[in-house]
Amino acid sequence: MPVIYHYDVLSQPARSVLLFIKVNDIPVEEKTISIIKGENKTEEFKKVSPFGKVPVIDHDGFVLSESVAILQYLAATFNTKDHWYPKANKTRARIDEYLAWHHSNLRKTAVTWVRQVVLLPLLTKQPVDDAVKTSLTADYDQTLDEFERYFLSTKEGFIGGANDISIADLIASQEIDTNAAAGHDTFTNRPVLKAYMDRVRAKLQPHYGYVQRQVQAILAAVSAQK
Amino acid sequence: MPVIYHYDVLSQPARSVLLFIKVNDIPVEEKTISIIKGENKTEEFKKVSPFGKVPVIDHDGFVLSESVAILQYLAATFNTKDHWYPKANKTRARIDEYLAWHHSNLRKTAVTWVRQVVLLPLLTKQPVDDAVKTSLTADYDQTLDEFERYFLSTKEGFIGGANDISIADLIASQEIDTNAAAGHDTFTNRPVLKAYMDRVRAKLQPHYGYVQRQVQAILAAVSAQK
Ligand SMILES: N[C@@H](CCC(=O)N[C@@H](CS)C(=O)NCC(=O)O)C(=O)O
Ligand SMILES: N[C@@H](CCC(=O)N[C@@H](CS)C(=O)NCC(=O)O)C(=O)O
Repeated sequence: MPVIYHYDVLSQPARSVLLFIKVNDIPVEEKTISIIKGENKTEEFKKVSPFGKVPVIDHDGFVLSESVAILQYLAATFNTKDHWYPKANKTRARIDEYLAWHHSNLRKTAVTWVRQVVLLPLLTKQPVDDAVKTSLTADYDQTLDEFERYFLSTKEGFIGGANDISIADLIASQEIDTNAAAGHDTFTNRPVLKAYMDRVRAKLQPHYGYVQRQVQAILAAVSAQK
Repeated sequence: MPVIYHYDVLSQPARSVLLFIKVNDIPVEEKTISIIKGENKTEEFKKVSPFGKVPVIDHDGFVLSESVAILQYLAATFNTKDHWYPKANKTRARIDEYLAWHHSNLRKTAVTWVRQVVLLPLLTKQPVDDAVKTSLTADYDQTLDEFERYFLSTKEGFIGGANDISIADLIASQEIDTNAAAGHDTFTNRPVLKAYMDRVRAKLQPHYGYVQRQVQAILAAVSAQK
């Protein structure tokens, strides 16, 4: 039985899981849910997703939310190559350390930045307050600095000094690329981060390009409606 | 070699790890770090802890931060009883789902509540604004409702319907008990949550009582200084 995958390609955590499924060729039945259209708020979807959020999987009746938990489950269940979620204790601990840090740091400051500085002004047609923009940008920049300094401290390879890509890189990269695409000046003074993101994207081709084009097509359609 | 454990007993994530170490009798060398005294901001401690935070472990030179990652690492390395972090994919996925949800939900609203409503007024001697208190209490109450409804949906056992305690229960319980002790009305209308917390505490005795008394002694000493 394929994994039924409920997702919106505009969601960063949902894209991390989508890329994992594609790159690892996991049998899947895709169900797209448009948050912009409010499809995540229907009674039908709430029967699937405990909090009306994407991503969610349904694997033979086993329903699971939370992108990180989904990636851990898929890696174990489909026995994907070890580098995605290494079994050796210390190597895995470096991935788990990032995955725990992620939520209250990179995810938090990245998503606050893109919502307040880009999406809300777009939807409300009210420009963002300068002081708010400065402060949220500083928060996000500080997190990127911490990410580069600690999680990319070897300056090569992947999160935690890994030789190959892991689920931690999938989770981090979607937040970083979303904000860079949305106009945050991410790479000018961060050559280590830039080279890292190039390595991540290269590992995920051709799926990465395909997913990016889907995102762009949806955003173009939304803008055209205004 | 024992695990060198850097912690402040006033920190919820640090207490989760401390209880795990005690209950599982893991060989440990304890190093207490007082955040109130600023001991986490020293150059010496910053050499250990990447972001000057507790908890951190040093296991034969392998330094690891983030309570969730530390618990996962200790469970694997010291091969603790399976219930702490079950190896079966679906059972583990329910624990991982909570551990991923935790940060941006229970941890976020719990810690914001206790900082703004209790600690800040205590330190600044400025009472908290009523509207702020109402709003933060509503946020935290909503999270508790979601926690009860979804993660305790079987109404018995532990997070995700487990028969026995796991690291997810350790992580959740310390936030919940801290806020209940600090004056949040947690249990009046939540019999399922109350019975759950009684089960968690019972599993952690006598260490739970010991840790609680340490917390109370420190808080009493702080209040006496005022
Ligand atoms: N921690 C969750 C976050 C899920 C999440 O925030 N999903 C957003 C899209 S990025 C969503 O579905 N939002 C709809 C809503 O909250 O109504 C994960 O990693 O899966
Ligand atoms: N996500 C981290 C949170 C660690 C954390 O927030 N530690 C706090 C104490 S509860 C701390 O050390 N704060 C000191 C500071 O930020 O300066 C974990 O679970 O270990």
